[in-house]
Amino acid sequence: MPTEFDLIRRHFTPPTPRTLLAGGDDAALLVPTPGHVTAVSTDMLVEGTHFLPGTDPRRLGHKTLAVNLSDLAAMGARPRWAFLALALPRVDEAWLGAFSAGFLALAAVHGVDLAGGDTTRGPLNLCVTVIGEVLAGNALRRDGAVPGDDVWLSGCTGEAAIGLAALRGTAAVDAIDEARCRARLEQPQPRVGLGVALAGLASAAIDVSDGLVADLGHLANRSACGIDVHWARLPQSSALAGVDGKRRAAAILAGGDDYELAFTASPTNRDAVRAAAQAAGVVVTRIGATVAGPAVVRVLDPIGLDIAPAGGGFDHFG
Amino acid sequence: MPTEFDLIRRHFTPPTPRTLLAGGDDAALLVPTPGHVTAVSTDMLVEGTHFLPGTDPRRLGHKTLAVNLSDLAAMGARPRWAFLALALPRVDEAWLGAFSAGFLALAAVHGVDLAGGDTTRGPLNLCVTVIGEVLAGNALRRDGAVPGDDVWLSGCTGEAAIGLAALRGTAAVDAIDEARCRARLEQPQPRVGLGVALAGLASAAIDVSDGLVADLGHLANRSACGIDVHWARLPQSSALAGVDGKRRAAAILAGGDDYELAFTASPTNRDAVRAAAQAAGVVVTRIGATVAGPAVVRVLDPIGLDIAPAGGGFDHFG
Repeated sequence: MPTEFDLIRRHFTPPTPRTLLAGGDDAALLVPTPGHVTAVSTDMLVEGTHFLPGTDPRRLGHKTLAVNLSDLAAMGARPRWAFLALALPRVDEAWLGAFSAGFLALAAVHGVDLAGGDTTRGPLNLCVTVIGEVLAGNALRRDGAVPGDDVWLSGCTGEAAIGLAALRGTAAVDAIDEARCRARLEQPQPRVGLGVALAGLASAAIDVSDGLVADLGHLANRSACGIDVHWARLPQSSALAGVDGKRRAAAILAGGDDYELAFTASPTNRDAVRAAAQAAGVVVTRIGATVAGPAVVRVLDPIGLDIAPAGGGFDHFG
Repeated sequence: MPTEFDLIRRHFTPPTPRTLLAGGDDAALLVPTPGHVTAVSTDMLVEGTHFLPGTDPRRLGHKTLAVNLSDLAAMGARPRWAFLALALPRVDEAWLGAFSAGFLALAAVHGVDLAGGDTTRGPLNLCVTVIGEVLAGNALRRDGAVPGDDVWLSGCTGEAAIGLAALRGTAAVDAIDEARCRARLEQPQPRVGLGVALAGLASAAIDVSDGLVADLGHLANRSACGIDVHWARLPQSSALAGVDGKRRAAAILAGGDDYELAFTASPTNRDAVRAAAQAAGVVVTRIGATVAGPAVVRVLDPIGLDIAPAGGGFDHFG
């Protein structure tokens, strides 16, 4: 491949006690931390499927790593290493420089070593593998919730979905809110610190990428319990104040691309959860509870009616 | 994504002491072996760039994993886990079933757990990340050769290149040889056992994927020494007997896609190298030596002339 791809290879982490070898050999050599288990996640992003053609490359570089770090955060794992494989339709040094700048800036924030990768020609495709570590026994799996646990959410959901709608011209929001929503869409901040702080404290966790109710459904399924969410407790972003009720509810409950953490914890851990969130500088909200019974997620209004039944749309908010 | 992709998820390794969690969560959870370092390699294969459209999917599944296992073998690492991310233009259950059958059959041969992955829509793209382990200090890096080391090659080179030429109709070889050459091209056998056996014994290693001279050049560069290969010592595949001299030499020296191991070892380790190869069931040949001086690879005829100078073609063999 052309030497322009050395732009990225040049940024491979130099040898450290943790990363013995990164780039320039058949494989990277990493030193695992004793007593820890290794968390690994891989995600492939395709132009036209996961991001729009013409997306700003620096933001895309950021997001490509961010969505992977979000997966590690949801396991309670501290991110250590990233591997970046990419196919590019042509050599475009400016594009690649901006992309890698966005990727590497976020890696630096979280102390992640770029330890290897691959570059090739082909339709634009970005595949990242991230590797993190968590103390054995402390990992936040999806299957650890038990009935009676609190259900928590970091930050708020819905902004990214409205940002995407604004980008497509299908939602009218004022200029300031659009900037905030687009930043949420294009430069999500993975909840790395919160995830690490919750390891061994939360009973289960998942990152909210497909939409809040859908992702809570995955957690409910794996934990074999139901989840009741109280609509009135869900954090409402002020950036969505100008959006009509039905669309706002759909964005909050089913928007996707939020990259928040939804997690469960015993009520006896409430103070500890709040302290962990404060230490991580992230707002968390107790939005409901797990319940014995089938793996169904209900979103309840103040008198206990399910206002967003599966497949039922959001007519209640019209 | 459609449930057809569950074909692959269904094959994720069930929990074991080494793989606590594979699939169904935000990340896989792996248990590293104490005292070992972790070797990681990622490769992206794109239709039209790395394989021809219409390639048999079962063979493609095999090769997709094989090329990655070859990288770990070249580090002396025992492969443990694989992650498979793929973009597919459409849901094709038959294709995906055959692809995963080829992939998983090779994984089973080498005791590799399929621990995670991602599936999405997009132009055909296969990205594999493999993770292996090697005792700290025993890894086979490219930079460990010293002048006076023996240079060794496993198996032989050139068959895959002739297989590709036959596939494209640009080389006439008899039917039996073509089958052998095409098998080498489409179903390479990574030298996993040999790589593991050489850990701590060889001084440097690389897998031969770009062509023998080019890959020896990478090793020479990283080790800051020269390499003299003796043409007369290079193993000559009987499958190439019908190929004209110039083309055969080009295939042997610069063909690529061989997935053999080229490695260096102290002459004091000759018997140990032969014993390791025998235990692994692989033929190895001592093809030359490292020499002090610039990082140049020379291919010498019996009177010491360089018969394949860089960029000089293979006219000598015409």
